[in-house]
Amino acid sequence: MGKKGKKGKKKKSTSAASGTPFSDALRVGEGYVLADLDTRRTPAFDGDKSDGVDALLAADGELDGLQERLYAEGTAGGSKRVLLVIQGMDTAGKGGIMRHVVGSVDPQGVDLTAFKAPTEEELAHPFLWRIRKALPGPGKIGVFDRSHYEDVLVVAVNDLVPPAQWKRRFSTINDFEQELIEDGTTLIKVVLQISKEEQGERLAERLDRPDKYWKYNPGDVTEREKWADYQVAYQEVLDKCSPASAPFYVVPADRKWYARLAVQQLLLEHLRAMDLTWPEADFDIEVEKERLANS
Amino acid sequence: MGKKGKKGKKKKSTSAASGTPFSDALRVGEGYVLADLDTRRTPAFDGDKSDGVDALLAADGELDGLQERLYAEGTAGGSKRVLLVIQGMDTAGKGGIMRHVVGSVDPQGVDLTAFKAPTEEELAHPFLWRIRKALPGPGKIGVFDRSHYEDVLVVAVNDLVPPAQWKRRFSTINDFEQELIEDGTTLIKVVLQISKEEQGERLAERLDRPDKYWKYNPGDVTEREKWADYQVAYQEVLDKCSPASAPFYVVPADRKWYARLAVQQLLLEHLRAMDLTWPEADFDIEVEKERLANS
Repeated sequence: MGKKGKKGKKKKSTSAASGTPFSDALRVGEGYVLADLDTRRTPAFDGDKSDGVDALLAADGELDGLQERLYAEGTAGGSKRVLLVIQGMDTAGKGGIMRHVVGSVDPQGVDLTAFKAPTEEELAHPFLWRIRKALPGPGKIGVFDRSHYEDVLVVAVNDLVPPAQWKRRFSTINDFEQELIEDGTTLIKVVLQISKEEQGERLAERLDRPDKYWKYNPGDVTEREKWADYQVAYQEVLDKCSPASAPFYVVPADRKWYARLAVQQLLLEHLRAMDLTWPEADFDIEVEKERLANS
Repeated sequence: MGKKGKKGKKKKSTSAASGTPFSDALRVGEGYVLADLDTRRTPAFDGDKSDGVDALLAADGELDGLQERLYAEGTAGGSKRVLLVIQGMDTAGKGGIMRHVVGSVDPQGVDLTAFKAPTEEELAHPFLWRIRKALPGPGKIGVFDRSHYEDVLVVAVNDLVPPAQWKRRFSTINDFEQELIEDGTTLIKVVLQISKEEQGERLAERLDRPDKYWKYNPGDVTEREKWADYQVAYQEVLDKCSPASAPFYVVPADRKWYARLAVQQLLLEHLRAMDLTWPEADFDIEVEKERLANS
Protein backbone atom coordinates (compact mmCIF):
# COMPACT_ATOMS: atom_id res chain seq x y z
CA MET A 1 0.00 0.00 0.00
CA GLY A 2 1.28 3.47 -0.94
CA LYS A 3 1.82 6.37 1.39
CA LYS A 4 -1.48 7.95 0.51
CA GLY A 5 -3.41 4.82 1.39
CA LYS A 6 -1.62 4.58 4.71
CA LYS A 7 -2.47 8.16 5.52
CA GLY A 8 -6.08 7.57 4.62
CA LYS A 9 -6.16 4.58 6.95
CA LYS A 10 -4.73 6.56 9.83
CA LYS A 11 -7.38 9.17 9.47
CA LYS A 12 -10.11 6.59 9.65
CA SER A 13 -8.68 4.87 12.68
CA THR A 14 -8.37 8.00 14.79
CA SER A 15 -12.11 8.31 14.47
CA ALA A 16 -12.49 4.99 16.26
CA ALA A 17 -13.92 6.73 19.29
CA SER A 18 -16.55 8.60 17.32
CA GLY A 19 -19.77 6.97 16.19
CA THR A 20 -21.19 4.58 18.78
CA PRO A 21 -19.30 4.84 22.06
CA PHE A 22 -17.64 1.59 23.12
CA SER A 23 -19.48 1.92 26.45
CA ASP A 24 -22.83 1.75 24.70
CA ALA A 25 -21.81 -1.07 22.39
CA LEU A 26 -20.41 -3.26 25.19
CA ARG A 27 -22.54 -2.46 28.24
CA VAL A 28 -24.42 -5.37 29.82
CA GLY A 29 -28.06 -4.57 30.37
CA GLU A 30 -31.05 -6.60 31.45
CA GLY A 31 -31.54 -9.88 29.62
CA TYR A 32 -27.97 -10.03 28.36
CA VAL A 33 -27.02 -13.52 27.18
CA LEU A 34 -23.29 -14.21 27.27
CA ALA A 35 -23.59 -17.37 25.19
CA ASP A 36 -24.95 -15.30 22.27
CA LEU A 37 -21.76 -13.24 21.97
CA ASP A 38 -19.66 -13.67 18.84
CA THR A 39 -16.19 -13.36 20.36
CA ARG A 40 -14.61 -12.44 17.01
CA ARG A 41 -16.75 -9.32 16.52
CA THR A 42 -15.41 -5.79 16.98
CA PRO A 43 -18.34 -3.66 18.23
CA ALA A 44 -18.05 0.13 17.82
CA PHE A 45 -15.05 -0.27 15.51
CA ASP A 46 -15.21 -0.99 11.80
CA GLY A 47 -11.47 -1.07 11.02
CA ASP A 48 -9.13 -4.02 10.71
CA LYS A 49 -6.16 -5.03 12.86
CA SER A 50 -3.80 -2.46 11.40
CA ASP A 51 -6.40 0.29 11.95
CA GLY A 52 -6.91 -0.92 15.49
CA VAL A 53 -3.22 -0.85 16.34
CA ASP A 54 -3.00 2.68 14.91
CA ALA A 55 -6.06 3.80 16.86
CA LEU A 56 -4.61 2.44 20.10
CA LEU A 57 -1.41 4.46 19.63
CA ALA A 58 -3.30 7.53 18.44
CA ALA A 59 -5.26 7.74 21.69
CA ASP A 60 -2.17 7.59 23.94
CA GLY A 61 -1.76 11.33 24.17
CA GLU A 62 -5.33 12.02 25.24
CA LEU A 63 -5.17 9.23 27.81
CA ASP A 64 -1.95 10.68 29.23
CA GLY A 65 -3.44 14.14 29.49
CA LEU A 66 -6.60 12.98 31.26
CA GLN A 67 -4.65 10.76 33.65
CA GLU A 68 -2.37 13.64 34.61
CA ARG A 69 -5.36 15.89 35.34
CA LEU A 70 -6.90 13.15 37.48
CA TYR A 71 -3.63 12.79 39.38
CA ALA A 72 -3.29 16.56 39.77
CA GLU A 73 -6.82 16.80 41.18
CA GLY A 74 -5.90 14.08 43.66
CA THR A 75 -2.86 15.98 44.93
CA ALA A 76 -5.06 19.06 45.37
CA GLY A 77 -7.54 17.28 47.62
CA GLY A 78 -9.97 15.90 45.04
CA SER A 79 -11.63 12.56 45.74
CA LYS A 80 -12.07 11.28 42.19
CA ARG A 81 -10.37 8.04 41.23
CA VAL A 82 -10.85 5.17 38.80
CA LEU A 83 -11.06 1.44 39.35
CA LEU A 84 -10.72 -0.74 36.28
CA VAL A 85 -11.63 -4.36 36.97
CA ILE A 86 -10.52 -6.94 34.40
CA GLN A 87 -12.00 -10.45 34.48
CA GLY A 88 -11.71 -13.26 31.99
CA MET A 89 -10.86 -16.91 31.53
CA ASP A 90 -7.21 -18.02 31.42
CA THR A 91 -5.49 -16.70 28.26
CA ALA A 92 -8.32 -14.19 27.66
CA GLY A 93 -5.68 -11.48 27.35
CA LYS A 94 -5.63 -9.87 30.80
CA GLY A 95 -1.84 -9.70 30.70
CA GLY A 96 -1.91 -8.00 27.32
CA ILE A 97 -4.31 -5.37 28.66
CA MET A 98 -1.93 -4.72 31.56
CA ARG A 99 1.05 -4.46 29.27
CA HIS A 100 -0.37 -2.54 26.32
CA VAL A 101 -3.18 -0.43 27.81
CA VAL A 102 -2.32 0.07 31.48
CA GLY A 103 1.37 0.09 30.51
CA SER A 104 0.87 3.16 28.35
CA VAL A 105 -0.21 5.21 31.38
CA ASP A 106 2.31 6.97 33.66
CA PRO A 107 3.12 4.30 36.29
CA GLN A 108 3.05 6.96 39.03
CA GLY A 109 -0.69 7.28 38.48
CA VAL A 110 -1.51 3.58 38.43
CA ASP A 111 -2.07 1.07 41.24
CA LEU A 112 -2.06 -2.37 39.65
CA THR A 113 -2.97 -5.45 41.66
CA ALA A 114 -3.03 -9.00 40.31
CA PHE A 115 -5.14 -11.19 42.56
CA LYS A 116 -3.90 -14.77 42.77
CA ALA A 117 -5.31 -17.67 44.76
CA PRO A 118 -5.81 -16.21 48.24
CA THR A 119 -3.13 -16.77 50.89
CA GLU A 120 -3.89 -18.38 54.22
CA GLU A 121 -4.02 -14.95 55.84
CA GLU A 122 -6.43 -13.69 53.20
CA LEU A 123 -8.64 -16.76 53.59
CA ALA A 124 -8.85 -16.05 57.31
CA HIS A 125 -10.56 -12.72 56.52
CA PRO A 126 -13.81 -11.81 54.74
CA PHE A 127 -13.36 -12.03 50.96
CA LEU A 128 -13.37 -8.23 50.48
CA TRP A 129 -10.51 -7.72 52.97
CA ARG A 130 -7.72 -8.05 50.45
CA ILE A 131 -9.75 -6.12 47.88
CA ARG A 132 -10.20 -3.11 50.18
CA LYS A 133 -6.47 -3.01 50.86
CA ALA A 134 -5.80 -2.67 47.15
CA LEU A 135 -8.29 0.12 46.39
CA PRO A 136 -6.83 3.17 44.62
CA GLY A 137 -6.38 6.42 46.50
CA PRO A 138 -7.65 9.78 45.21
CA GLY A 139 -6.22 10.74 41.82
CA LYS A 140 -5.15 7.18 41.03
CA ILE A 141 -6.24 4.67 38.43
CA GLY A 142 -6.55 1.36 40.22
CA VAL A 143 -6.43 -1.74 38.06
CA PHE A 144 -7.49 -5.18 39.22
CA ASP A 145 -6.23 -8.18 37.23
CA ARG A 146 -8.92 -10.53 38.55
CA SER A 147 -10.88 -9.25 41.53
CA HIS A 148 -13.60 -9.92 44.10
CA TYR A 149 -15.51 -11.56 41.26
CA GLU A 150 -13.24 -14.59 41.57
CA ASP A 151 -15.05 -15.16 44.88
CA VAL A 152 -18.24 -15.93 42.94
CA LEU A 153 -16.54 -17.52 39.92
CA VAL A 154 -13.67 -19.89 40.72
CA VAL A 155 -15.20 -20.33 44.17
CA ALA A 156 -18.61 -21.26 42.78
CA VAL A 157 -17.31 -23.55 40.05
CA ASN A 158 -15.02 -25.42 42.44
CA ASP A 159 -17.34 -25.44 45.49
CA LEU A 160 -14.65 -23.75 47.58
CA VAL A 161 -17.24 -22.46 50.04
CA PRO A 162 -20.85 -23.58 50.61
CA PRO A 163 -23.32 -22.22 48.00
CA ALA A 164 -25.35 -20.33 50.62
CA GLN A 165 -22.18 -18.41 51.44
CA TRP A 166 -21.05 -17.44 47.94
CA LYS A 167 -24.58 -16.69 46.80
CA ARG A 168 -24.81 -14.02 49.53
CA ARG A 169 -21.77 -12.36 48.00
CA PHE A 170 -23.62 -10.92 45.00
CA SER A 171 -25.47 -8.43 47.19
CA THR A 172 -22.35 -7.83 49.31
CA ILE A 173 -20.48 -6.96 46.12
CA ASN A 174 -23.24 -4.65 44.88
CA ASP A 175 -23.29 -2.79 48.19
CA PHE A 176 -19.50 -2.58 48.23
CA GLU A 177 -19.38 -1.15 44.74
CA GLN A 178 -22.05 1.46 45.53
CA GLU A 179 -19.90 2.54 48.46
CA LEU A 180 -16.90 2.93 46.15
CA ILE A 181 -18.93 5.04 43.75
CA GLU A 182 -20.14 7.27 46.58
CA ASP A 183 -16.50 7.74 47.63
CA GLY A 184 -15.67 9.20 44.22
CA THR A 185 -14.68 6.07 42.32
CA THR A 186 -15.47 5.71 38.65
CA LEU A 187 -15.85 1.97 38.33
CA ILE A 188 -15.22 0.22 35.00
CA LYS A 189 -15.88 -3.53 35.09
CA VAL A 190 -14.76 -5.58 32.12
CA VAL A 191 -15.07 -9.22 31.11
CA LEU A 192 -12.73 -10.29 28.32
CA GLN A 193 -14.64 -13.03 26.58
CA ILE A 194 -12.92 -15.57 24.33
CA SER A 195 -14.23 -18.73 22.72
CA LYS A 196 -13.20 -22.15 23.97
CA GLU A 197 -11.52 -22.78 20.62
CA GLU A 198 -9.45 -19.62 20.93
CA GLN A 199 -8.35 -20.63 24.42
CA GLY A 200 -7.29 -24.01 23.08
CA GLU A 201 -5.07 -22.36 20.47
CA ARG A 202 -3.52 -19.99 23.00
CA LEU A 203 -2.74 -22.79 25.44
CA ALA A 204 -1.28 -24.87 22.62
CA GLU A 205 1.06 -22.00 21.73
CA ARG A 206 2.37 -21.99 25.30
CA LEU A 207 3.22 -25.68 24.93
CA ASP A 208 4.95 -25.11 21.61
CA ARG A 209 7.37 -22.34 22.54
CA PRO A 210 10.14 -22.71 25.14
CA ASP A 211 9.86 -18.96 25.88
CA LYS A 212 6.20 -19.53 26.79
CA TYR A 213 6.48 -22.64 28.98
CA TRP A 214 6.61 -20.50 32.12
CA LYS A 215 3.13 -19.17 31.32
CA TYR A 216 1.68 -22.68 31.20
CA ASN A 217 0.28 -24.42 34.21
CA PRO A 218 -1.29 -27.89 34.12
CA GLY A 219 -4.09 -26.40 36.25
CA ASP A 220 -5.11 -24.31 33.23
CA VAL A 221 -6.40 -27.42 31.46
CA THR A 222 -8.09 -28.62 34.64
CA GLU A 223 -10.03 -25.33 34.72
CA ARG A 224 -10.65 -25.51 30.96
CA GLU A 225 -12.44 -28.80 31.49
CA LYS A 226 -14.99 -26.83 33.53
CA TRP A 227 -15.57 -24.33 30.69
CA ALA A 228 -19.35 -24.74 30.66
CA ASP A 229 -19.58 -24.28 34.43
CA TYR A 230 -17.54 -21.09 34.21
CA GLN A 231 -19.86 -19.74 31.54
CA VAL A 232 -22.83 -20.37 33.84
CA ALA A 233 -21.01 -18.62 36.68
CA TYR A 234 -20.14 -15.62 34.48
CA GLN A 235 -23.75 -15.39 33.31
CA GLU A 236 -24.90 -15.30 36.93
CA VAL A 237 -22.41 -12.51 37.68
CA LEU A 238 -23.78 -10.50 34.74
CA ASP A 239 -27.36 -11.18 35.82
CA LYS A 240 -26.80 -10.09 39.41
CA CYS A 241 -23.94 -7.56 39.39
CA SER A 242 -24.51 -5.33 36.41
CA PRO A 243 -26.87 -2.62 37.70
CA ALA A 244 -27.14 0.58 35.64
CA SER A 245 -24.96 2.37 38.20
CA ALA A 246 -22.14 -0.18 37.99
CA PRO A 247 -22.54 -2.09 34.74
CA PHE A 248 -20.24 -4.71 33.29
CA TYR A 249 -18.78 -4.34 29.81
CA VAL A 250 -18.21 -7.58 27.92
CA VAL A 251 -15.41 -7.27 25.38
CA PRO A 252 -15.19 -9.88 22.59
CA ALA A 253 -11.55 -10.87 22.96
CA ASP A 254 -10.63 -13.44 20.30
CA ARG A 255 -8.88 -10.55 18.51
CA LYS A 256 -6.28 -9.25 20.93
CA TRP A 257 -5.88 -5.94 19.14
CA TYR A 258 -9.59 -5.25 19.47
CA ALA A 259 -9.76 -6.15 23.17
CA ARG A 260 -6.89 -3.75 23.91
CA LEU A 261 -8.47 -0.96 21.91
CA ALA A 262 -11.86 -1.53 23.52
CA VAL A 263 -10.53 -1.41 27.08
CA GLN A 264 -8.48 1.70 26.29
CA GLN A 265 -11.54 3.40 24.81
CA LEU A 266 -13.73 2.40 27.76
CA LEU A 267 -11.13 3.98 30.05
CA LEU A 268 -10.97 7.11 27.87
CA GLU A 269 -14.74 7.49 27.66
CA HIS A 270 -15.04 7.27 31.43
CA LEU A 271 -12.17 9.71 32.04
CA ARG A 272 -13.67 12.21 29.58
CA ALA A 273 -16.95 12.09 31.49
CA MET A 274 -15.19 12.96 34.77
CA ASP A 275 -14.75 16.67 33.90
CA LEU A 276 -11.15 16.76 35.06
CA THR A 277 -9.50 20.17 35.37
CA TRP A 278 -6.11 21.52 36.45
CA PRO A 279 -6.29 22.58 40.11
CA GLU A 280 -6.03 26.27 40.94
CA ALA A 281 -2.85 27.41 42.67
CA ASP A 282 -3.33 27.23 46.45
CA PHE A 283 -0.53 29.75 46.97
CA ASP A 284 0.10 33.36 45.90
CA ILE A 285 1.87 33.08 42.55
CA GLU A 286 3.54 36.50 42.70
CA VAL A 287 4.78 35.95 46.24
CA GLU A 288 6.27 32.62 45.23
CA LYS A 289 7.96 34.08 42.15
CA GLU A 290 9.57 36.65 44.43
CA ARG A 291 10.65 34.00 46.94
CA LEU A 292 12.12 31.88 44.15
CA ALA A 293 13.98 34.84 42.66
CA ASN A 294 15.55 35.53 46.05
CA SER A 295 16.48 31.92 46.79
CA MET B 1 18.50 16.79 7.24
CA GLY B 2 17.83 14.25 4.49
CA LYS B 3 16.79 10.65 4.97
CA LYS B 4 20.29 9.34 4.64
CA GLY B 5 21.57 11.63 7.37
CA LYS B 6 18.74 10.58 9.64
CA LYS B 7 19.54 6.95 9.08
CA GLY B 8 23.19 7.62 9.83
CA LYS B 9 22.23 9.25 13.10
CA LYS B 10 20.04 6.37 14.12
CA LYS B 11 22.84 3.94 13.58
CA LYS B 12 25.13 5.96 15.79
CA SER B 13 22.63 6.28 18.59
CA THR B 14 21.83 2.60 18.88
CA SER B 15 25.49 2.11 19.66
CA ALA B 16 25.02 4.28 22.75
CA ALA B 17 25.47 1.25 24.98
CA SER B 18 28.75 0.24 23.38
CA GLY B 19 32.01 1.97 24.20
CA THR B 20 32.33 2.84 27.88
CA PRO B 21 29.49 1.29 29.87
CA PHE B 22 27.35 3.87 31.66
CA SER B 23 28.01 1.96 34.88
CA ASP B 24 31.73 2.62 34.59
CA ALA B 25 31.30 6.25 33.59
CA LEU B 26 28.90 7.08 36.44
CA ARG B 27 29.99 4.84 39.33
CA VAL B 28 31.00 6.59 42.56
CA GLY B 29 34.35 5.37 43.84
CA GLU B 30 36.63 6.45 46.64
CA GLY B 31 37.43 10.16 46.71
CA TYR B 32 34.47 11.13 44.56
CA VAL B 33 33.68 14.85 44.82
CA LEU B 34 30.07 15.71 43.97
CA ALA B 35 30.78 19.44 43.74
CA ASP B 36 33.17 18.78 40.82
CA LEU B 37 30.43 17.32 38.62
CA ASP B 38 29.42 19.24 35.52
CA THR B 39 25.69 18.57 35.51
CA ARG B 40 25.37 19.34 31.80
CA ARG B 41 27.78 16.61 30.70
CA THR B 42 26.65 13.36 29.08
CA PRO B 43 29.17 10.67 30.13
CA ALA B 44 29.33 7.50 28.02
CA PHE B 45 27.23 9.10 25.30
CA ASP B 46 28.52 11.36 22.57
CA GLY B 47 25.29 12.09 20.72
CA ASP B 48 22.92 15.03 21.02
CA LYS B 49 19.35 15.21 22.29
CA SER B 50 17.81 13.75 19.16
CA ASP B 51 20.29 10.85 19.26
CA GLY B 52 19.52 10.33 22.92
CA VAL B 53 15.78 10.19 22.38
CA ASP B 54 16.30 7.68 19.55
CA ALA B 55 18.64 5.58 21.68
CA LEU B 56 16.11 5.46 24.52
CA LEU B 57 13.41 4.13 22.19
CA ALA B 58 15.83 1.77 20.46
CA ALA B 59 16.62 -0.02 23.72
CA ASP B 60 12.97 -0.63 24.66
CA GLY B 61 12.80 -4.05 23.06
CA GLU B 62 15.87 -5.41 24.81
CA LEU B 63 14.67 -4.05 28.15
CA ASP B 64 11.28 -5.71 27.62
CA GLY B 65 12.88 -9.04 26.80
CA LEU B 66 15.17 -9.04 29.82
CA GLN B 67 12.40 -7.97 32.17
CA GLU B 68 10.17 -10.77 30.94
CA ARG B 69 12.91 -13.33 31.53
CA LEU B 70 13.45 -11.97 35.04
CA TYR B 71 9.72 -12.23 35.71
CA ALA B 72 9.58 -15.73 34.26
CA GLU B 73 12.47 -16.86 36.48
CA GLY B 74 10.57 -15.45 39.47
CA THR B 75 7.44 -17.48 38.66
CA ALA B 76 9.63 -20.59 38.40
CA GLY B 77 11.08 -20.19 41.88
CA GLY B 78 14.12 -18.00 41.13
CA SER B 79 15.17 -15.46 43.74
CA LYS B 80 16.66 -12.78 41.48
CA ARG B 81 15.12 -9.34 41.56
CA VAL B 82 16.13 -5.74 40.94
CA LEU B 83 15.86 -2.68 43.14
CA LEU B 84 16.36 0.66 41.42
CA VAL B 85 16.71 3.53 43.91
CA ILE B 86 16.29 7.06 42.54
CA GLN B 87 17.37 10.02 44.64
CA GLY B 88 17.70 13.67 43.73
CA MET B 89 16.76 17.21 44.68
CA ASP B 90 13.27 18.53 43.88
CA THR B 91 12.78 18.88 40.10
CA ALA B 92 15.84 16.69 39.40
CA GLY B 93 13.67 14.61 37.09
CA LYS B 94 12.62 11.65 39.24
CA GLY B 95 9.09 11.84 37.85
CA GLY B 96 10.40 11.82 34.29
CA ILE B 97 12.42 8.69 35.03
CA MET B 98 9.30 7.00 36.39
CA ARG B 99 7.25 8.01 33.38
CA HIS B 100 9.70 7.48 30.54
CA VAL B 101 12.03 4.73 31.76
CA VAL B 102 10.07 2.73 34.33
CA GLY B 103 6.90 3.44 32.31
CA SER B 104 8.32 1.61 29.31
CA VAL B 105 8.52 -1.65 31.27
CA ASP B 106 5.55 -4.03 31.58
CA PRO B 107 3.72 -2.75 34.69
CA GLN B 108 3.09 -6.34 35.81
CA GLY B 109 6.82 -6.70 36.46
CA VAL B 110 7.32 -3.42 38.32
CA ASP B 111 6.74 -2.47 41.96
CA LEU B 112 6.98 1.31 42.13
CA THR B 113 6.94 3.09 45.48
CA ALA B 114 7.15 6.86 45.95
CA PHE B 115 8.24 7.65 49.50
CA LYS B 116 6.71 10.84 50.86
CA ALA B 117 7.18 12.45 54.27
CA PRO B 118 6.62 9.55 56.70
CA THR B 119 3.19 9.09 58.28
CA GLU B 120 2.71 8.99 62.03
CA GLU B 121 2.57 5.21 61.89
CA GLU B 122 5.81 5.06 59.91
CA LEU B 123 7.52 7.46 62.33
CA ALA B 124 6.56 5.16 65.19
CA HIS B 125 8.70 2.41 63.60
CA PRO B 126 12.42 2.13 62.76
CA PHE B 127 13.20 4.03 59.56
CA LEU B 128 13.66 0.87 57.49
CA TRP B 129 10.20 -0.47 58.41
CA ARG B 130 8.35 1.15 55.52
CA ILE B 131 11.25 0.41 53.20
CA ARG B 132 11.19 -3.33 53.94
CA LYS B 133 7.44 -3.43 53.26
CA ALA B 134 8.05 -2.04 49.77
CA LEU B 135 10.86 -4.38 48.70
CA PRO B 136 10.28 -6.21 45.40
CA GLY B 137 9.52 -9.91 45.38
CA PRO B 138 11.40 -12.44 43.23
CA GLY B 139 11.22 -11.68 39.51
CA LYS B 140 10.19 -8.08 40.06
CA ILE B 141 11.86 -4.77 39.35
CA GLY B 142 11.31 -2.63 42.43
CA VAL B 143 11.66 1.11 41.95
CA PHE B 144 12.01 3.58 44.81
CA ASP B 145 11.23 7.24 44.06
CA ARG B 146 13.16 8.55 47.10
CA SER B 147 14.12 5.94 49.64
CA HIS B 148 15.81 5.17 52.97
CA TYR B 149 18.39 7.75 51.94
CA GLU B 150 15.93 10.51 52.82
CA ASP B 151 16.51 9.39 56.41
CA VAL B 152 20.07 10.69 56.18
CA LEU B 153 19.33 13.59 53.79
CA VAL B 154 16.19 15.58 54.58
CA VAL B 155 16.46 14.31 58.15
CA ALA B 156 20.06 15.50 58.52
CA VAL B 157 19.54 18.87 56.84
CA ASN B 158 16.47 19.64 58.91
CA ASP B 159 17.66 18.14 62.23
CA LEU B 160 14.58 15.92 62.35
CA VAL B 161 16.32 13.46 64.67
CA PRO B 162 19.45 13.92 66.82
CA PRO B 163 22.73 13.68 64.84
CA ALA B 164 23.94 10.68 66.86
CA GLN B 165 20.84 8.84 65.67
CA TRP B 166 20.99 9.62 61.94
CA LYS B 167 24.77 9.16 61.82
CA ARG B 168 24.30 5.56 62.97
CA ARG B 169 22.06 5.00 59.97
CA PHE B 170 24.89 4.89 57.44
CA SER B 171 26.10 1.54 58.75
CA THR B 172 22.54 0.33 59.26
CA ILE B 173 21.88 1.10 55.60
CA ASN B 174 25.06 -0.62 54.43
CA ASP B 175 24.17 -3.75 56.40
CA PHE B 176 20.60 -3.66 55.10
CA GLU B 177 21.74 -3.39 51.50
CA GLN B 178 24.19 -6.28 51.88
CA GLU B 179 21.32 -8.38 53.15
CA LEU B 180 19.27 -7.46 50.07
CA ILE B 181 22.12 -8.44 47.79
CA GLU B 182 22.51 -11.78 49.56
CA ASP B 183 18.78 -12.39 49.05
CA GLY B 184 19.23 -12.11 45.26
CA THR B 185 18.65 -8.40 44.74
CA THR B 186 20.57 -6.51 42.09
CA LEU B 187 20.74 -3.06 43.61
CA ILE B 188 21.09 0.04 41.41
CA LYS B 189 21.38 3.28 43.36
CA VAL B 190 21.13 6.52 41.42
CA VAL B 191 21.47 10.19 42.29
CA LEU B 192 20.08 12.57 39.66
CA GLN B 193 22.23 15.64 40.04
CA ILE B 194 21.15 19.04 38.75
CA SER B 195 22.67 22.48 39.23
CA LYS B 196 21.01 25.06 41.46
CA GLU B 197 20.46 27.24 38.39
CA GLU B 198 18.67 24.45 36.57
CA GLN B 199 16.42 23.88 39.58
CA GLY B 200 15.60 27.58 39.60
CA GLU B 201 14.47 27.42 35.98
CA ARG B 202 12.38 24.31 36.51
CA LEU B 203 10.62 25.78 39.55
CA ALA B 204 10.01 29.02 37.65
CA GLU B 205 8.32 27.04 34.88
CA ARG B 206 5.92 25.54 37.41
CA LEU B 207 4.95 29.06 38.47
CA ASP B 208 4.44 30.16 34.88
CA ARG B 209 2.08 27.48 33.64
CA PRO B 210 -1.41 26.87 35.07
CA ASP B 211 -1.09 23.18 34.10
CA LYS B 212 2.03 23.00 36.32
CA TYR B 213 0.81 24.82 39.45
CA TRP B 214 -0.17 21.52 41.04
CA LYS B 215 3.46 20.42 40.94
CA TYR B 216 4.60 23.49 42.86
CA ASN B 217 4.81 23.60 46.63
CA PRO B 218 6.04 26.62 48.61
CA GLY B 219 8.09 24.14 50.63
CA ASP B 220 10.21 23.52 47.50
CA VAL B 221 11.75 26.99 47.82
CA THR B 222 12.23 26.50 51.56
CA GLU B 223 14.29 23.39 50.81
CA ARG B 224 16.07 25.16 47.95
CA GLU B 225 17.33 27.74 50.42
CA LYS B 226 19.23 24.86 52.08
CA TRP B 227 20.87 23.84 48.80
CA ALA B 228 24.41 23.93 50.19
CA ASP B 229 23.46 21.83 53.22
CA TYR B 230 21.86 19.25 50.95
CA GLN B 231 25.02 19.03 48.87
CA VAL B 232 27.03 18.35 52.05
CA ALA B 233 24.52 15.68 53.05
CA TYR B 234 24.65 14.04 49.60
CA GLN B 235 28.45 14.06 49.69
CA GLU B 236 28.35 12.30 53.05
CA VAL B 237 26.00 9.66 51.62
CA LEU B 238 28.39 9.07 48.73
CA ASP B 239 31.36 8.90 51.10
CA LYS B 240 29.75 6.38 53.44
CA CYS B 241 27.27 4.36 51.38
CA SER B 242 28.95 3.63 48.07
CA PRO B 243 30.97 0.46 48.70
CA ALA B 244 32.14 -1.50 45.67
CA SER B 245 29.41 -4.07 46.31
CA ALA B 246 26.61 -1.47 46.33
CA PRO B 247 27.88 1.64 44.58
CA PHE B 248 26.00 4.80 43.79
CA TYR B 249 25.78 6.12 40.25
CA VAL B 250 25.60 9.89 39.93
CA VAL B 251 23.82 10.96 36.75
CA PRO B 252 24.30 14.55 35.52
CA ALA B 253 20.68 15.57 35.07
CA ASP B 254 20.46 19.09 33.69
CA ARG B 255 19.63 17.44 30.37
CA LYS B 256 16.48 15.42 30.95
CA TRP B 257 16.95 13.29 27.83
CA TYR B 258 20.41 12.22 29.02
CA ALA B 259 19.29 11.39 32.56
CA ARG B 260 16.54 9.14 31.19
CA LEU B 261 18.88 7.40 28.79
CA ALA B 262 21.52 6.94 31.49
CA VAL B 263 19.12 5.35 33.99
CA GLN B 264 17.70 3.10 31.28
CA GLN B 265 21.19 1.99 30.29
CA LEU B 266 22.21 1.40 33.92
CA LEU B 267 19.15 -0.82 34.26
CA LEU B 268 19.95 -2.63 31.02
CA GLU B 269 23.60 -3.18 31.88
CA HIS B 270 22.65 -4.68 35.24
CA LEU B 271 19.93 -6.90 33.73
CA ARG B 272 22.34 -8.16 31.08
CA ALA B 273 24.79 -9.17 33.80
CA MET B 274 22.16 -11.26 35.57
CA ASP B 275 22.29 -14.14 33.06
CA LEU B 276 18.54 -14.46 32.79
CA THR B 277 17.14 -17.49 31.01
CA TRP B 278 13.71 -18.92 30.20
CA PRO B 279 12.77 -21.50 32.84
CA GLU B 280 12.55 -25.15 31.81
CA ALA B 281 9.07 -26.66 31.72
CA ASP B 282 8.26 -28.22 35.11
CA PHE B 283 5.67 -30.49 33.51
CA ASP B 284 5.71 -33.17 30.81
CA ILE B 285 5.10 -31.31 27.57
CA GLU B 286 3.77 -34.29 25.64
CA VAL B 287 1.40 -35.28 28.43
CA GLU B 288 0.06 -31.74 28.58
CA LYS B 289 -0.42 -31.56 24.80
CA GLU B 290 -2.48 -34.71 25.05
CA ARG B 291 -4.52 -33.38 27.98
CA LEU B 292 -5.15 -30.14 26.12
CA ALA B 293 -6.21 -31.97 22.95
CA ASN B 294 -8.73 -33.96 24.98
CA SER B 295 -10.13 -31.01 26.88
